Amino acid sequence: MMADAAAEPNRPLVPVLAVVGVGLIGGSFAAALRASQSVGKVLGVGRNASSLAVARRLGIIDATATLEQAAQEADLIFLATPVGAIGPTLKALKPGLRPSALITDAGSTKVNVVAAARDALGASISQFIPGHPIAGAEKTGPEAADPNLYRQRNVVLTPLEENSAADKAALRRIWECCGARVISMEPEAHDAALASVSHVPHFLSSVFMWQVATAADSDLRMTLAGSGFRDFTRIAAGSPEVWRDIFLTNRPAILAELHEVKAALERAELALQSGDGKELQDFLERAALARRFWGSRSGLS
Amino acid sequence: MMADAAAEPNRPLVPVLAVVGVGLIGGSFAAALRASQSVGKVLGVGRNASSLAVARRLGIIDATATLEQAAQEADLIFLATPVGAIGPTLKALKPGLRPSALITDAGSTKVNVVAAARDALGASISQFIPGHPIAGAEKTGPEAADPNLYRQRNVVLTPLEENSAADKAALRRIWECCGARVISMEPEAHDAALASVSHVPHFLSSVFMWQVATAADSDLRMTLAGSGFRDFTRIAAGSPEVWRDIFLTNRPAILAELHEVKAALERAELALQSGDGKELQDFLERAALARRFWGSRSGLS
Repeated sequence: MMADAAAEPNRPLVPVLAVVGVGLIGGSFAAALRASQSVGKVLGVGRNASSLAVARRLGIIDATATLEQAAQEADLIFLATPVGAIGPTLKALKPGLRPSALITDAGSTKVNVVAAARDALGASISQFIPGHPIAGAEKTGPEAADPNLYRQRNVVLTPLEENSAADKAALRRIWECCGARVISMEPEAHDAALASVSHVPHFLSSVFMWQVATAADSDLRMTLAGSGFRDFTRIAAGSPEVWRDIFLTNRPAILAELHEVKAALERAELALQSGDGKELQDFLERAALARRFWGSRSGLS
Repeated sequence: MMADAAAEPNRPLVPVLAVVGVGLIGGSFAAALRASQSVGKVLGVGRNASSLAVARRLGIIDATATLEQAAQEADLIFLATPVGAIGPTLKALKPGLRPSALITDAGSTKVNVVAAARDALGASISQFIPGHPIAGAEKTGPEAADPNLYRQRNVVLTPLEENSAADKAALRRIWECCGARVISMEPEAHDAALASVSHVPHFLSSVFMWQVATAADSDLRMTLAGSGFRDFTRIAAGSPEVWRDIFLTNRPAILAELHEVKAALERAELALQSGDGKELQDFLERAALARRFWGSRSGLS
């Protein structure tokens, strides 16, 4: 799908990009490729007419398109919809899909997306390379799009055996143009790790926020909430639709991980109940050291 | 204890301040009063000689002192130690305490502090006004001291019936010089609200961080952790000693609140287990709306 730089030096890496779902994730992808002069024309596809209008006004997309038009015109199609919409979107793209088009996604779960893609694309499955950029998403909408969102961030690709080496290299190069680091792994390993470090924290943060908000004295509580509360609950402000889909599509891995977290919670609670200061301090120290070490090497805090 | 501004216009509001525990909280209090020209001399008291040396080098304190010296010389004594050290500190201050000295604290729990203070001070209890500035504490040490830490932040005072109206007004004015908003309430109400919005989040964040750090594949997990993980676990990096004491001194309120959070978690988990997308979305929406509303009115995010 990619332009051959040696043969056509003035042709951009991605002549025509179609972004399905022009919010933070899709808009930032388009903006990053535009900032690095890697894209020719950007088509925006979406259900929300006002989001598309904003994206066009901000110069994130050049024109709006239907899925059928995107399938026929685009060299690269980037799916940045809630994960539950990826299967239906691929089904709609399939009939008119250019054989040279490459499709990737930004879904936070991969086992389910791979299954939906195989079902939707059939023999065209080689044109789909599953992906997941690990980048913040508490802000939503095209207004939040940022060409630097993926800079120094990890992007996981879970390529299929049907994908060609050339397509895999091309997609890797495209993400690197956005400033991202590309990691390849199996979909199952991705989903288990993300259940732990992304989905479970979101679940716990939202449950906690729900519990505080529905308490009889929630006004007083929230008046006394400080910066710890702010940080702990920030992710709970994320898109309910996006996270509902993530929870439903990665259910077994999330339930398994919640089981482990609850076992750890029981243990810490028992130490608190019995007033065991030494065990409390041990677990707090281990947590604090691990968090400080992660903070110093992640580049994220 | 306070200088009478009308009688002595050049005398600072707090002629001599003693700060016990010169870390983020104590250092920022001294720095804020100095920045507003409300303090004359600042004495630093602490067990850690190198922290005191740093505080002196940074100009946060003018001199180091023992608790006995602080009791004899200070007009205001600010206790910024872990809450477990407040009782023993007050006992050491008591024998030589100037009758005009006012003492306050920054402890995150208040019922336990009030009991320890009554026990330690006896008839001098009127000189102690319990307090709790609600300000971030994930960074530690005098290097993190910031004269603006308390600006626009809430400070809860839980005055005792023995405190004089003049002393209560003086302490309120001192905190207002730091840029803080002062709220008065009962110690029990404070501890219940803080258990909900501060202590339980810290407990959950630390348990979660502990669980991820002790998993067999923790390296992979942490490589794939993004900004959601960063925010959710930021408080887990806080001082283990400080938080052990908070947990132990506010145990009943924290255990009661953990019980409520676990009930909410069971309910959400059941919705996930049964694949109930509607209930998941309802709870995610309620949480997201509450968090966004809090963010817009708290001034914290």
